[in-house]
Amino acid sequence: MGSFKGHALPGSFFLVAGIWWTVKHSLWYATRRNKNIGSTRLSSRASQRRLEVIESSLILFFSVVGMLLEQFAADGPRLQLYDFAEKHWEDLMNWQHATMYLFFGLAAMVSLIIHTTEAAPLALDRLMLAVAFFNEGFLFLYHLHGRSMLDVHVHQLLLYAIFGDALVSFLEVFHRGNIILELLRCTLTLLQGSWFWQIGYVLYPPRGPEWDLKDHNNMMFITMCYSWHLAFAMLLVSVLYCAVSCVVRSRLKRTPPIEMGLLKPRDRDLESEDEIL
Amino acid sequence: MGSFKGHALPGSFFLVAGIWWTVKHSLWYATRRNKNIGSTRLSSRASQRRLEVIESSLILFFSVVGMLLEQFAADGPRLQLYDFAEKHWEDLMNWQHATMYLFFGLAAMVSLIIHTTEAAPLALDRLMLAVAFFNEGFLFLYHLHGRSMLDVHVHQLLLYAIFGDALVSFLEVFHRGNIILELLRCTLTLLQGSWFWQIGYVLYPPRGPEWDLKDHNNMMFITMCYSWHLAFAMLLVSVLYCAVSCVVRSRLKRTPPIEMGLLKPRDRDLESEDEIL
Amino acid sequence: MGSFKGHALPGSFFLVAGIWWTVKHSLWYATRRNKNIGSTRLSSRASQRRLEVIESSLILFFSVVGMLLEQFAADGPRLQLYDFAEKHWEDLMNWQHATMYLFFGLAAMVSLIIHTTEAAPLALDRLMLAVAFFNEGFLFLYHLHGRSMLDVHVHQLLLYAIFGDALVSFLEVFHRGNIILELLRCTLTLLQGSWFWQIGYVLYPPRGPEWDLKDHNNMMFITMCYSWHLAFAMLLVSVLYCAVSCVVRSRLKRTPPIEMGLLKPRDRDLESEDEIL
Amino acid sequence: MGSFKGHALPGSFFLVAGIWWTVKHSLWYATRRNKNIGSTRLSSRASQRRLEVIESSLILFFSVVGMLLEQFAADGPRLQLYDFAEKHWEDLMNWQHATMYLFFGLAAMVSLIIHTTEAAPLALDRLMLAVAFFNEGFLFLYHLHGRSMLDVHVHQLLLYAIFGDALVSFLEVFHRGNIILELLRCTLTLLQGSWFWQIGYVLYPPRGPEWDLKDHNNMMFITMCYSWHLAFAMLLVSVLYCAVSCVVRSRLKRTPPIEMGLLKPRDRDLESEDEIL
Repeated sequence: MGSFKGHALPGSFFLVAGIWWTVKHSLWYATRRNKNIGSTRLSSRASQRRLEVIESSLILFFSVVGMLLEQFAADGPRLQLYDFAEKHWEDLMNWQHATMYLFFGLAAMVSLIIHTTEAAPLALDRLMLAVAFFNEGFLFLYHLHGRSMLDVHVHQLLLYAIFGDALVSFLEVFHRGNIILELLRCTLTLLQGSWFWQIGYVLYPPRGPEWDLKDHNNMMFITMCYSWHLAFAMLLVSVLYCAVSCVVRSRLKRTPPIEMGLLKPRDRDLESEDEIL
Repeated sequence: MGSFKGHALPGSFFLVAGIWWTVKHSLWYATRRNKNIGSTRLSSRASQRRLEVIESSLILFFSVVGMLLEQFAADGPRLQLYDFAEKHWEDLMNWQHATMYLFFGLAAMVSLIIHTTEAAPLALDRLMLAVAFFNEGFLFLYHLHGRSMLDVHVHQLLLYAIFGDALVSFLEVFHRGNIILELLRCTLTLLQGSWFWQIGYVLYPPRGPEWDLKDHNNMMFITMCYSWHLAFAMLLVSVLYCAVSCVVRSRLKRTPPIEMGLLKPRDRDLESEDEIL
Repeated sequence: MGSFKGHALPGSFFLVAGIWWTVKHSLWYATRRNKNIGSTRLSSRASQRRLEVIESSLILFFSVVGMLLEQFAADGPRLQLYDFAEKHWEDLMNWQHATMYLFFGLAAMVSLIIHTTEAAPLALDRLMLAVAFFNEGFLFLYHLHGRSMLDVHVHQLLLYAIFGDALVSFLEVFHRGNIILELLRCTLTLLQGSWFWQIGYVLYPPRGPEWDLKDHNNMMFITMCYSWHLAFAMLLVSVLYCAVSCVVRSRLKRTPPIEMGLLKPRDRDLESEDEIL
Repeated sequence: MGSFKGHALPGSFFLVAGIWWTVKHSLWYATRRNKNIGSTRLSSRASQRRLEVIESSLILFFSVVGMLLEQFAADGPRLQLYDFAEKHWEDLMNWQHATMYLFFGLAAMVSLIIHTTEAAPLALDRLMLAVAFFNEGFLFLYHLHGRSMLDVHVHQLLLYAIFGDALVSFLEVFHRGNIILELLRCTLTLLQGSWFWQIGYVLYPPRGPEWDLKDHNNMMFITMCYSWHLAFAMLLVSVLYCAVSCVVRSRLKRTPPIEMGLLKPRDRDLESEDEIL
């Protein structure tokens, strides 16, 4: 998968996930804050659950597709791990990428089970997400042996975002519903997504000249470029957050909140359930 | 102890410990959640104590056996530390392993004292466990000087599980009874156990060809293999957790919970004691 | 910007920021502690907001000035990033410094928005500060390739203060208003400021002989010197804290607190708002 | 100070501090637990303060003595920092050790001020202790350049105890009065003290043969030896804790607690003050 496409694909995946999470958490935070003017109808506990189930199903679906692609695409190992004839491992790269997808798939499966049944504690979905991110970073960490300087460097920078994501998700196990942590996770996911694209452009430029992978100045530029990606991710999250907040507030103003009073007690019960953990 | 058996033995120990802890914590969590339908009779505070005492006694027993084996087995140092005649240390490996067992033995002894008397704060057992795991990792860390690449690598991977266990146990000092942390500790202990077996198979293959300890592809495969062990550990914990939950719920349905109402006030008192720390 | 001035300028900036923060947090803490004797009039919620807005505006202003200076000063890149004729990056140092200013500017902008509108959660200003400090340290970390030993060492010591600042700011997201953390942040900011001056004196001594950048004794002295800067920063924070405390208490004694009783209920409401996060 | 005495002296200091802290915290914990049977008379808030003041004064005194000794002992620099004639730094080692004492002196001074006046928040004494330990570790970290392997190794092992002490003290800022953390700090301080003695015996054996500082087996033995020191420190803390607990309980049984009931309300008020932070 060492190609431009191979980096653009997961990049797009993380960009979409980042944008979607930002919208979701902004929406829920806005409705929680404006509860007194009847916003609970915008996102009741039941609709929240439905969203989570849909999200988990989609992630699960794409993880499975990703694993199948890695295995059965043109140059995939087709589930063969060891070539006994020639005594070497078959396409270890593909197997590693499939393993990464596997953990995101597991996280999605656990999340599905949590939000459809009452079997497991709620905070488990964040722990599984943390494990999935950690596993991704862990595999990348031992992925870099013997590559050229700039190649190693751009992947090392990626690790900041990945392990940052893992750490923030783990903190969310203890501080669930903290909007600061949620938006930080969204930012780091967007950063990861856009940086995958950047890696693609640096290592496999689709057009234009090749980058000199040993030039120290290129390395210094790339480091700064990472900061700009972070600034861009923060900007995008801010814009989305503000847009969602405005929409929620304007919709609440248009409709009178009085009739909602009847629904509130039940909704609150359902929501307090959520806060038990 | 550099042999297949020498790795399979502690591996089995950690596997059993991991499975047992999963069952124990799942059971207690399930009974806590279903308290309103009378589950407290399944695990009252008194029976919890009895379990802890039995568990600690067993760990203490096996630690002492382990220390004695390391000292008095065929090639052990028989409590002799320094050979003054030839001026060298006697079987440092065995002494190091005995030291590891010593700390687990200390942890078990403290746990015994805590759960039979009221002398010490409850959270101390988790701290001692954290210290025991930390000490194990600490000794392994300075154990690896001058070995071949793959040998170092498989032991380094082991350190993730060991230090992870130490960290989670330390967090449990502050968040006692958090089921997420408890299951995470079980998972990491299982991972440690199965990885000890894997190390045995890689370094001392009981049959089949030797592994090339300097091949970079082997190293990449082993890294991925570690992820699979983690996935397997998570799967095992999930299955055990679900099984225990189902059994608890089905047993509660069969017996009417009404008669239990009389026991509840006393049990609650006993349990609130537990939450004081 | 590799010059004495180039280090003295940010140094002065951080020194002023450190002193100002110490005064601000000491004042607020003193008024909070002496609330019962009517001190709220010294710093009501409204005046706190006004202070925050002024502070953020000043930081934003100086960040923009800093960015413009880096770009358009005598040897700046004038917004040109790549010289296509000679195929090399233009003045990467200036671009990196401008990026550092950019993040402090972003933090100030977010702080402005938070304290003038109700749009975002309060704790976001500390997160943005943490990100700004982290970004500064991150860029310095990859800044040091190929310099002489002492040059690398003095910049590495600087990283302790910078990453310390980032960590403390991040902790403040969860422990807002903890005076210990606030004073620690002030201390580390002062340390950073005075160390920038020290770096200037070591690498570009304005008068007197050059330092031998490869002498090991110089390195050992510099390490100890860093401790002294830390002691000096702690001393300065203590003196400022005591001075502010004394002034607040003496002013409260002179004016009778009785008339303030009427204002208290409203102020408390405003303040409890503050504690919602 | 590179001599046997130079390591035995701070070692003894830390051993005494560790033992004293264990007794102090065990006593206070035991009285807090047995409050209902009238133990508050054993350690009222006022007597606690008096103890803290005496302890801080002693530490301050010994820090000043230590600094003076380092400066004015036989081969000290006598406050001269730079020899302008021969252009080299004067006795940097002594200056570094004096700096370490300085920070413990500062911590003691702040603790004195906190416990005699109401000027500063209580948690500050733990922060200052954390800074003092951190500073000690920080100076040791850059102290080891160019020494032989075993010399570096024994000092690195020391850093575990020092930075552990710093971390635990910092955690106590947020979890003040947590007996687990307090005993952990005592253990690490004892470990530090006994390890200083061990370093003295290894590097400057008062009698018997020299150690071979380049033998890998010596290094492995030393690592294990560190674990034994830790086990010994834990044992000592346990014994002291149990002894103090027994004494407190037996003294309480001999005197009737009834008459104490009159004092309780006032004591509780004084103590709740303590818990405000």
